Amino acid sequence: MKAIIVRPPATGVQISDVNVSNSGKIKIRTLESGICGTDREIVNGQMSTASTQEGKDYLILGHEAIGLVEQGGYGFKEGDLVMPVNRRGCGKCLNCILGRPDYCETGEFVEAGISGLDGFMREYWYDEPVYLVKVPKSIRDIAILAQPLADIEKSMEEILKVQSRLNWSCSDGTLNCRNALVVGTGPIGILFSLILKTYGLETWITNIRDPLPSEEEIFANVGINYYNSSSGYDKLREQLKFDLIINATGASAETNSSLLTLLKRNGVLGLFGFPISGSFSVDKSATVDMIMGNKVIVGLVNGQKPHFQLAMIHLASWKTLWPNATSKLITKSIKLEDEKEVIQALRKKVEGEIKIKLIWE
Amino acid sequence: MKAIIVRPPATGVQISDVNVSNSGKIKIRTLESGICGTDREIVNGQMSTASTQEGKDYLILGHEAIGLVEQGGYGFKEGDLVMPVNRRGCGKCLNCILGRPDYCETGEFVEAGISGLDGFMREYWYDEPVYLVKVPKSIRDIAILAQPLADIEKSMEEILKVQSRLNWSCSDGTLNCRNALVVGTGPIGILFSLILKTYGLETWITNIRDPLPSEEEIFANVGINYYNSSSGYDKLREQLKFDLIINATGASAETNSSLLTLLKRNGVLGLFGFPISGSFSVDKSATVDMIMGNKVIVGLVNGQKPHFQLAMIHLASWKTLWPNATSKLITKSIKLEDEKEVIQALRKKVEGEIKIKLIWE
Amino acid sequence: MKAIIVRPPATGVQISDVNVSNSGKIKIRTLESGICGTDREIVNGQMSTASTQEGKDYLILGHEAIGLVEQGGYGFKEGDLVMPVNRRGCGKCLNCILGRPDYCETGEFVEAGISGLDGFMREYWYDEPVYLVKVPKSIRDIAILAQPLADIEKSMEEILKVQSRLNWSCSDGTLNCRNALVVGTGPIGILFSLILKTYGLETWITNIRDPLPSEEEIFANVGINYYNSSSGYDKLREQLKFDLIINATGASAETNSSLLTLLKRNGVLGLFGFPISGSFSVDKSATVDMIMGNKVIVGLVNGQKPHFQLAMIHLASWKTLWPNATSKLITKSIKLEDEKEVIQALRKKVEGEIKIKLIWE
Amino acid sequence: MKAIIVRPPATGVQISDVNVSNSGKIKIRTLESGICGTDREIVNGQMSTASTQEGKDYLILGHEAIGLVEQGGYGFKEGDLVMPVNRRGCGKCLNCILGRPDYCETGEFVEAGISGLDGFMREYWYDEPVYLVKVPKSIRDIAILAQPLADIEKSMEEILKVQSRLNWSCSDGTLNCRNALVVGTGPIGILFSLILKTYGLETWITNIRDPLPSEEEIFANVGINYYNSSSGYDKLREQLKFDLIINATGASAETNSSLLTLLKRNGVLGLFGFPISGSFSVDKSATVDMIMGNKVIVGLVNGQKPHFQLAMIHLASWKTLWPNATSKLITKSIKLEDEKEVIQALRKKVEGEIKIKLIWE
Repeated sequence: MKAIIVRPPATGVQISDVNVSNSGKIKIRTLESGICGTDREIVNGQMSTASTQEGKDYLILGHEAIGLVEQGGYGFKEGDLVMPVNRRGCGKCLNCILGRPDYCETGEFVEAGISGLDGFMREYWYDEPVYLVKVPKSIRDIAILAQPLADIEKSMEEILKVQSRLNWSCSDGTLNCRNALVVGTGPIGILFSLILKTYGLETWITNIRDPLPSEEEIFANVGINYYNSSSGYDKLREQLKFDLIINATGASAETNSSLLTLLKRNGVLGLFGFPISGSFSVDKSATVDMIMGNKVIVGLVNGQKPHFQLAMIHLASWKTLWPNATSKLITKSIKLEDEKEVIQALRKKVEGEIKIKLIWE
Repeated sequence: MKAIIVRPPATGVQISDVNVSNSGKIKIRTLESGICGTDREIVNGQMSTASTQEGKDYLILGHEAIGLVEQGGYGFKEGDLVMPVNRRGCGKCLNCILGRPDYCETGEFVEAGISGLDGFMREYWYDEPVYLVKVPKSIRDIAILAQPLADIEKSMEEILKVQSRLNWSCSDGTLNCRNALVVGTGPIGILFSLILKTYGLETWITNIRDPLPSEEEIFANVGINYYNSSSGYDKLREQLKFDLIINATGASAETNSSLLTLLKRNGVLGLFGFPISGSFSVDKSATVDMIMGNKVIVGLVNGQKPHFQLAMIHLASWKTLWPNATSKLITKSIKLEDEKEVIQALRKKVEGEIKIKLIWE
Repeated sequence: MKAIIVRPPATGVQISDVNVSNSGKIKIRTLESGICGTDREIVNGQMSTASTQEGKDYLILGHEAIGLVEQGGYGFKEGDLVMPVNRRGCGKCLNCILGRPDYCETGEFVEAGISGLDGFMREYWYDEPVYLVKVPKSIRDIAILAQPLADIEKSMEEILKVQSRLNWSCSDGTLNCRNALVVGTGPIGILFSLILKTYGLETWITNIRDPLPSEEEIFANVGINYYNSSSGYDKLREQLKFDLIINATGASAETNSSLLTLLKRNGVLGLFGFPISGSFSVDKSATVDMIMGNKVIVGLVNGQKPHFQLAMIHLASWKTLWPNATSKLITKSIKLEDEKEVIQALRKKVEGEIKIKLIWE
Repeated sequence: MKAIIVRPPATGVQISDVNVSNSGKIKIRTLESGICGTDREIVNGQMSTASTQEGKDYLILGHEAIGLVEQGGYGFKEGDLVMPVNRRGCGKCLNCILGRPDYCETGEFVEAGISGLDGFMREYWYDEPVYLVKVPKSIRDIAILAQPLADIEKSMEEILKVQSRLNWSCSDGTLNCRNALVVGTGPIGILFSLILKTYGLETWITNIRDPLPSEEEIFANVGINYYNSSSGYDKLREQLKFDLIINATGASAETNSSLLTLLKRNGVLGLFGFPISGSFSVDKSATVDMIMGNKVIVGLVNGQKPHFQLAMIHLASWKTLWPNATSKLITKSIKLEDEKEVIQALRKKVEGEIKIKLIWE
């Protein structure tokens, strides 16, 4: 079958005819794939942890996919739309046994399309029911976003648990009095800001430039505040500090030093995007501040099946609540037969891109 | 102004011209009111706890309302749609101070339109921002459901907390392996079954008759199983037992005895609807069963502002996910000028009714 | 070896020479056994769930034991004192896999000395490290209490989780403003009242008679209030109501009806002791009360390894805090060679008994 | 009355006759005071946040005290031993209203003997019942430790809440499989290691030297592993990594960089001791590691009344469990009349000191 393959750690990507045999009780025909930054890091040889499935010399790319059930069973029937959960647990540690390989303790999980398991950029695949999430047909147009959104849902779940150490709700029982800042306006940054609004937090988003017109429309539709941080965070800090900051950039880790200074007492700095360089430093007084203020820095990674399901609910609500914003989240669809364009999209992000889909059928 | 008033404990209801002065920083013009079973109990003199506001000889009815902000401020602006939170705390106990009068410890809360505070079946009212919930315009048609739904959201929050005593999620991290049974197909029963599906539980609903055609359509659209319990629960019990049972009927309390026999180990029986008569008995062996199986019976009551906000999100998601079911939830709208019909609707429920709205403007 | 055996469902108990082969990595010589009500129910043929190990025609009695490691390993060394965890999980459901067969979902667990597994009233046994709890030598005199106490520790854990649905702590962050009532002054009732004081609750205990002198001393030493409920609970109810009530009697289930009337808003009625007869009834108004007040009835059963470990810490603290009370908890020790007395103790409880130990060596 | 006073930010300390009028419903005669590092920082002018009570030009030192109730009421009676809670809330934010000024959001709390409120190094004081914790007479000898221990109890509560985001318990339901490392063997380090053992974690403690003989005895009695980190952590890291690391040193913040490399997936680095200098850096790969491994850095500060009460229980248990270790925790008692020695003790820590007490009566 046709598949998009890579050969990590080598750079490069190609569309090939491959002969794959994978097993699984459900057969799924691929309808569309999403492209994300991780795919491009693999293609460009920047992801050191990328690896092929055991015994193979190439890796089928793709961890965001929507497919059509061709042979069902186990609660899935022909014609159902499904999305695969990409990380699959080690089967040994308790967290994996509980269906939560996002908290895998051994590190021996695999991630389809990334490390140790072929991905979903291929015509069809077989899978186990436990790894498949039903996609409501009414959100098919944006459902591909449920994969990155699942990571964010898990992050919110984690943050709310971390904050359960204190009374974090406001005097009306909501989170409306809490201020959140999302750093970065990539797909993760934008999706995170929408989720924060969904949870009721007053939300800011920032980038080191003015917002693009399409971003402006999204933020206006949803009610998200924008801050241009090209000259730093001083002006913002004078105005307000934050209960929650999400670093969703892949920029230098250095940013985190500044972000700590924006954090309120009991505040949480969530690290989401892998920095491409740099390091952040916590000096004596920032350390004292963290202690005196019960502050937290927490790494946020990977959503699992419950988070995919919650992501579907939230995407469905957004279609109703913020149709204008929602319609801007898929910035491009490329047919697989436009091979040149496909390869180009896998190599480089274009300005203004939020989510690109490859159309298989 | 025009208002719908009652004089508890007397029976009867009338549309009157009243001279009300209430205070509050926001002025809201009433757009629509929902009618619920509690309104009818008050009208028919069956609700012993109904009471007027101090120093008044009548009570303005109505605890479900959507209004239009006429004079805003504090985050609300002219033209915003809002919904009032009906129960307002005692201001003394910690739960009320935390914005959670659903867990009021003194019992000295008031409930607009029910006890101690005038309700919202009137042309306009003034209110405090803290009691107002913004209504997204895109769900205006069904938003009146957010009031009863808030009670259900609170119930789910409570049930999930109760179940946090054990590992309640399935081996894929979801709640998909959990079976829930909702008893009663009134508005609460139907809304509860939709919420349970939203949370991922496999859901059954039951009544002592076959489903009405409109119910059948709703359950089919959402994927809810129906059981006719006119000859008891034996056939159902043979087939399966439940992790969660919600008694959402206002029928005899006796039903609860049977429901306990349907409960799995670690199961929860949630009591929601006030029984009109009867009592339920837990015999020696049922008591041993509760102990050996860590079973819980829990009373569920009242949603607050965070639950109204979550209800809005869920209603928005349902419009996308289950448009057919959602369109059947408002079974009738009556204009206020049709006085006779209004009064009749306040007196008696008609078969097949889910939610009736009174239209003010 | 010598062992105390029963042949359920037949009544009777005998000390026999048996030929047991059981396997396990650790060999433990029995030092002492505790006798509890469950043992007597088995001996007297009143426990319908009592059963022998598969393929055997007798059951070695005994689920409370302290032993001496004779052949160690896996963190246990010769000379260590250990206590076995009596309930062992089904190995299938997630709660059992998590080491929490107290929440077993299949019901396929076994309980040493009770159902499906030989107990510890024998000279020595072999066991797996996972089921053994280290006993600090400094509490050897009272450590046998850790077995029933573990059940109570689990109950407290469960109750605190159930109450995490609301703000249950007082305005000083403690539980000192919460009132608890323990019904019954058997070993469970007394231990439960000590645990409640340990957790900071204001605690009442009740029986249908005046306290025995030894009970009086215990309650005075610990600071527990006593109420004689021989003429019912009316006088108590006038004085105060309770946030938590533990029914620790094995009396008629009927008591629970009265206890519900003593419960405050948001209160919990914990069912611990298996009733020997009767049934309790929740009438219409009690049901409404449960709903309006978010009240909970919860079954409480079985402690596991974490609870045994916590029980050891609490017993150690009691020796320091309440030496007088603690010294009264073991009411008698019988040497195994006093066979007649052993058999008698296994048949019938004597007045004033809290815990009787059989001494093996 | 006689009091020990300081004049921050000036260095120096003196025993003076002062004329204090403070109000409060309970009169308490001081029996003993504990000295801690914070006292010495104030005395030596190193604590920038030290400040006098409003309108006063000196500050009475002392935040660790045990006193005797002279005029009681409100549940306290003459002759009761009590300990004051030192941090008192802002009275404005919800966490303070809930009795949890450890999570104060405004920062407007005061700390007796440190900032904004006179301390307890004086002959007697008046206080409000809400700030007083009863001290069981049987632990009077070591109860002064309950003040620093309360901070640690709060830290454990916080860490357990943070870890509730995942399944942190082992396959036997305990925490026995979790490894904790405490960095620093000052009083906080030693107390933290004892608490970790109390909670069941396998515990290591480290300092950049061999243990003192008295430390060796404590660690042997309790079962704590010691690691000499004078040549860094490489040898330790080869052997094992940690689920929880507590930095309880007041040394350079730099240590934290190394500690992060010792942390397992899902691990927590708790910052407790205020660093005197330095800064720690989290480079690109350590940041990626934090994200991929859901790692947490959390600031830990201040215990409140519930933590003091739990500390009393734990101290009582330690007296029974580890009498040898417990007897070594109070390293010196100085009578107040030995003024020179008192002043010297307030200026400088001596090697091997764990806790010094000043005796007032």
